[in-house]
Amino acid sequence: MERVTTGIPGLDEMLLGGFLPQTANLVEGAPGTGKTTLGMQFIHHGIAACGEPGLILTFEEFPQQYYDDAASFGWDFRQMEREGTLRVVMTSPEVSKADLEQVGGRIERLVQEIGVKRVLVDSISHFERLSETPSELRALVYGFVNALKREGLTAVLTRESMALLGEAEGADDTLTFLVDSYTLLRYVEIDSAVHKGLLVLKMRGSNHDKGIRQFDITSRGIEVRAPFEGREGIMSGSPRRMVDSFVQAFVRR
Amino acid sequence: MERVTTGIPGLDEMLLGGFLPQTANLVEGAPGTGKTTLGMQFIHHGIAACGEPGLILTFEEFPQQYYDDAASFGWDFRQMEREGTLRVVMTSPEVSKADLEQVGGRIERLVQEIGVKRVLVDSISHFERLSETPSELRALVYGFVNALKREGLTAVLTRESMALLGEAEGADDTLTFLVDSYTLLRYVEIDSAVHKGLLVLKMRGSNHDKGIRQFDITSRGIEVRAPFEGREGIMSGSPRRMVDSFVQAFVRR
Amino acid sequence: MERVTTGIPGLDEMLLGGFLPQTANLVEGAPGTGKTTLGMQFIHHGIAACGEPGLILTFEEFPQQYYDDAASFGWDFRQMEREGTLRVVMTSPEVSKADLEQVGGRIERLVQEIGVKRVLVDSISHFERLSETPSELRALVYGFVNALKREGLTAVLTRESMALLGEAEGADDTLTFLVDSYTLLRYVEIDSAVHKGLLVLKMRGSNHDKGIRQFDITSRGIEVRAPFEGREGIMSGSPRRMVDSFVQAFVRR
Amino acid sequence: MERVTTGIPGLDEMLLGGFLPQTANLVEGAPGTGKTTLGMQFIHHGIAACGEPGLILTFEEFPQQYYDDAASFGWDFRQMEREGTLRVVMTSPEVSKADLEQVGGRIERLVQEIGVKRVLVDSISHFERLSETPSELRALVYGFVNALKREGLTAVLTRESMALLGEAEGADDTLTFLVDSYTLLRYVEIDSAVHKGLLVLKMRGSNHDKGIRQFDITSRGIEVRAPFEGREGIMSGSPRRMVDSFVQAFVRR
Amino acid sequence: MERVTTGIPGLDEMLLGGFLPQTANLVEGAPGTGKTTLGMQFIHHGIAACGEPGLILTFEEFPQQYYDDAASFGWDFRQMEREGTLRVVMTSPEVSKADLEQVGGRIERLVQEIGVKRVLVDSISHFERLSETPSELRALVYGFVNALKREGLTAVLTRESMALLGEAEGADDTLTFLVDSYTLLRYVEIDSAVHKGLLVLKMRGSNHDKGIRQFDITSRGIEVRAPFEGREGIMSGSPRRMVDSFVQAFVRR
Amino acid sequence: MERVTTGIPGLDEMLLGGFLPQTANLVEGAPGTGKTTLGMQFIHHGIAACGEPGLILTFEEFPQQYYDDAASFGWDFRQMEREGTLRVVMTSPEVSKADLEQVGGRIERLVQEIGVKRVLVDSISHFERLSETPSELRALVYGFVNALKREGLTAVLTRESMALLGEAEGADDTLTFLVDSYTLLRYVEIDSAVHKGLLVLKMRGSNHDKGIRQFDITSRGIEVRAPFEGREGIMSGSPRRMVDSFVQAFVRR
Repeated sequence: MERVTTGIPGLDEMLLGGFLPQTANLVEGAPGTGKTTLGMQFIHHGIAACGEPGLILTFEEFPQQYYDDAASFGWDFRQMEREGTLRVVMTSPEVSKADLEQVGGRIERLVQEIGVKRVLVDSISHFERLSETPSELRALVYGFVNALKREGLTAVLTRESMALLGEAEGADDTLTFLVDSYTLLRYVEIDSAVHKGLLVLKMRGSNHDKGIRQFDITSRGIEVRAPFEGREGIMSGSPRRMVDSFVQAFVRR
Repeated sequence: MERVTTGIPGLDEMLLGGFLPQTANLVEGAPGTGKTTLGMQFIHHGIAACGEPGLILTFEEFPQQYYDDAASFGWDFRQMEREGTLRVVMTSPEVSKADLEQVGGRIERLVQEIGVKRVLVDSISHFERLSETPSELRALVYGFVNALKREGLTAVLTRESMALLGEAEGADDTLTFLVDSYTLLRYVEIDSAVHKGLLVLKMRGSNHDKGIRQFDITSRGIEVRAPFEGREGIMSGSPRRMVDSFVQAFVRR
Repeated sequence: MERVTTGIPGLDEMLLGGFLPQTANLVEGAPGTGKTTLGMQFIHHGIAACGEPGLILTFEEFPQQYYDDAASFGWDFRQMEREGTLRVVMTSPEVSKADLEQVGGRIERLVQEIGVKRVLVDSISHFERLSETPSELRALVYGFVNALKREGLTAVLTRESMALLGEAEGADDTLTFLVDSYTLLRYVEIDSAVHKGLLVLKMRGSNHDKGIRQFDITSRGIEVRAPFEGREGIMSGSPRRMVDSFVQAFVRR
Repeated sequence: MERVTTGIPGLDEMLLGGFLPQTANLVEGAPGTGKTTLGMQFIHHGIAACGEPGLILTFEEFPQQYYDDAASFGWDFRQMEREGTLRVVMTSPEVSKADLEQVGGRIERLVQEIGVKRVLVDSISHFERLSETPSELRALVYGFVNALKREGLTAVLTRESMALLGEAEGADDTLTFLVDSYTLLRYVEIDSAVHKGLLVLKMRGSNHDKGIRQFDITSRGIEVRAPFEGREGIMSGSPRRMVDSFVQAFVRR
Repeated sequence: MERVTTGIPGLDEMLLGGFLPQTANLVEGAPGTGKTTLGMQFIHHGIAACGEPGLILTFEEFPQQYYDDAASFGWDFRQMEREGTLRVVMTSPEVSKADLEQVGGRIERLVQEIGVKRVLVDSISHFERLSETPSELRALVYGFVNALKREGLTAVLTRESMALLGEAEGADDTLTFLVDSYTLLRYVEIDSAVHKGLLVLKMRGSNHDKGIRQFDITSRGIEVRAPFEGREGIMSGSPRRMVDSFVQAFVRR
Repeated sequence: MERVTTGIPGLDEMLLGGFLPQTANLVEGAPGTGKTTLGMQFIHHGIAACGEPGLILTFEEFPQQYYDDAASFGWDFRQMEREGTLRVVMTSPEVSKADLEQVGGRIERLVQEIGVKRVLVDSISHFERLSETPSELRALVYGFVNALKREGLTAVLTRESMALLGEAEGADDTLTFLVDSYTLLRYVEIDSAVHKGLLVLKMRGSNHDKGIRQFDITSRGIEVRAPFEGREGIMSGSPRRMVDSFVQAFVRR
């Protein structure tokens, strides 16, 4: 099956090649876990390696921030804008939603004019401001996401997680049922340091790697590595060393 | 006693043959655990193996999504629609409830015309939008579920669980008292990976397997396997290795 | 002291013979734990073994459901209705409360006409809908319960527990102070399976067994067995194996 | 210092002789832990052993319930009423509070006429209904408690605890700051059974035993025994066996 | 640097001599932990040992209660009142705040007339009643505290903690940012008994002992002793025995 | 890359040299953890060692408090004010926000007149009072922070954490997504004493040390030391000793 590669070492392998085309892919994490970096890398890889123009919809930060952040990984977003393979659009959830609902809106024009194939929505959390109930939010995001798919786009949607370590409790969270894939970025405390872990929890219409993998943000972007080892309760953010290693220490004697 | 088989390896065994006829069977899980897959497999098996036409009521996704998802398991839902053994109906909780309350409604006609025996309601969570209090929701779902039974249907109702790992706290949950059986799908973290577990918690009028079983979603659909081993607290989503294995390691020496 | 036997193996032993006469006995549990089965068994035993006619007040399910459920245990409730030793009355909390408040109401007449001695109220949770504050609910249930006692009845009141495993937190629960006895049915995860546990927490005016006992629902109804062994934290629903067994394994060497 | 003995074996010892005179003593526990029994025993002991007439203010149960409960311990409350050494008064928080605020009220008359020295208020939880905010409740109970002390009475105030096992969280609880002593009755799960534990947490103007003691309700009333042994986390209701016993098992070898 | 000694054995040592002059010092604890005793001891020591007259502002208890409580430690507060070195003033948060805001108010006069140097505010929790939001409360207490400092006073402010064992969750607590030092009194369950622990968490402008120390209330007042030993999680109120002692038991063999 | 050094031993090393220029750096901690000290040290170091004038915006404490606190570390803030290299401005969130929005406001003038390069905002928590919803607060702080950056300033923003030990749950916290770096100060209980730990969780546009380091407040200000060792769950505030040390004790034998 055709795949939309992310170009992120390790992640494409976990996704058995990449995202499926014309899907909405949620990437969630606490501040500093690298959600936006993952999304920018997905956009950059599309332009630089696959000839697929990209669009970044930002609801808070100025385009300049993306140019700067990208530059720190050696990605020249400003040049891509000049070449017409990238657009970084600062907008609002309201405007971008209305835009997608009309014929010939800005996003539709970008798709037609520069052939946009990939979109990064940073972040979907800003839609919460537009709705008063969880079911209203759900309908809103559902409509937005489907409109992106209708335009033929493969989307990465970032979402902010409140909990620094472990799961946020009591969240009225139903957006995860709408999306085609759901990837979690988490802080994990091990040996007096905070590591980063990545888990693909859900991928509709495809098998995927179920491991909880370590990852780092390097000068070349995100690099996903091997799964954590010898720990229980990793997703709690504060794993326990497994009795195993304990037992082995005895048995090995 | 007559049983409505699901065709899911392992699950029919847990149900001592299958669901009881004309019952409402709740299947609950977090996003990506395979609720809808389980329901589609139940419908497909009815049509393909038991000669029992099926109906899918969907409150959010388009029929196309079901055709695509089914196709990934080798189930040709579009062909079944053409042959008149399946109907995928996109509707709303309001409409389908009103439909069932009148004589000669759409669902009743489908039962009479194509002989529908099985129904998948995906998902019952959408009824929450229609009611303001838990007791209103309960009355609403109770009426809906009984109407389905009166039509002679055996139903799988999917429900969305908010909690990714472990139990959601404080849920105002009384629907589980209404249904005839209640099956939970859960993520379970073991050895740095996220596995899936299935538990039949309740089955009215029948004994059933009480084990917490592992299951996978393969290219042929859901396959339920053996119970987890050597772990405590599985339903918390973050089980502990049991002291047992520890002790055995010593004693075996 | 005179006792009202339940006929449930093991439970009468825990109650030192049975419930006290003219008392209100609360039986609480999650869906599928067997609350209604326990109540039906109490009613059936009264009729079949003690010559004490029974009454079932149901606030949600139709009498047919009770006939069917009873039949699966070999109890012929329909025949008992015909013989005038049982009445299954589908009503509402409002109506049954009003009925008890007037002279010569329906329940009073049943007591006089067929000599009802035992009543199953399934479930007392439905009273919550009638009251807006916990103290209103308390007054309401208190009045209802006392009216039943004044009629000379020994009552089993079922109550729905929201928590699947362990205690529900933050519940505004004061009904347990009103009743004469309080029995909890709980799911307990042990060795990758979900077992059932029963605990008599309170029994006014009598000593009682304080053990947390395992029980099963068999083809003959509920059977209460020996206490759980070698586990801590059973009431949390997710017990830990005790260090004891660990130590013994060493010491026995 | 003069002490008001409770006559409860073990408890007077923990209180270094008994309560201090003219104090308000809070006794808190979950349903069935024996709060009312403790209070009745305190009243009975005053009358039978110390020549101190007693008063029971009940806000929910009828006097008959107290006569019956007392009888099960061999205490003849009805006879004491006849002899004029006991009054069981069913009233409301509103009425009893108003009564204490006026000169020559009912309680004041009982003090003057039969020389009441001890009072059981069962339960102080019913005052919650009268107040809308925690600070209003506090002022209300404070006034009530001081009025009792002004009458020269030593009071046991029972309070209902919502949590079956362990601490109720988030309780807006400031009454414990008003009272002179505070005793907690708790369920404690040990070895697959539910035991009862008693702790005197606070005693103004006196030292007291800080142990967490086991107690039983026998045919002679409450009997407080030795502290629990070899467990950690007793007040959580679900204690852990201490590593100690573990270590000793090794070291003893 | 000049210090305001408390006269409490062990505490002055932890404070490296005592509180700093003209500071507000918060002392927080559950009922019965000894907050008021600590404050009275601070006042008594000032008068008896340092020649610094004291003031007690009480918002709930009558002066008599303080005379009695002090007497149980051998402190003759009534005599000190007569000698003009102590004032126990029962007032309200409203009145005392207004008093401090005007020129020549009661507190200012006491400072001028009898030379008050130390004040005990028992308890600051009563200010909560005056404010509707946390930020209003903060502004209110901030103004009150600064007014006390402007009068040249060194203050002990007691605060009531809702949690019996461990931390209260979700508390909207910002007062701790206003004060100059913050001392916590906690119950700690060890070996089936409830001990008391003291921790100085914060001390502005000075170093201090960071240990969690045991303390007792003796006939001479509070005595702070050595830190707890061999336990983890003391501040949770339910500490675990450390693996250390376990290991040592092995290694010592 | 150019760095704005903090002058705090250990912290600059963790930041790979210091903060990035023109960034907003959040420092969060419970009362007494040293947030303000860290911020003052950053300001002092800029003036004394880098020739970069500083500004302190305080929303609650008077300048005098900062002079005093600084003096206790040997930093002469009053002298710096006289020399025109420091301004301590007591203001309100409203005023400082309005000031930054107009041309030629006070802050802009200070930047022009004395060449302010560094600013300490103490504390950003006071903005919460100005907004009714989390998204309003976010927009407000976002505008404020960007205005500071536009002036060319590198900012330390302190924030108050409610939780004494471990994470506050359920916090509606999205400010952490706005800032360029996020440093947490935490209390950690180890060996019956409360230590302090520091973690740089996020640093936009730069790598950084991920360790959880111990730190102390000495007479020279904050000194960050080595990471904690041999503990799990440090960020919970109540770490467990790792099984490792246990195993090593055996293996070393």
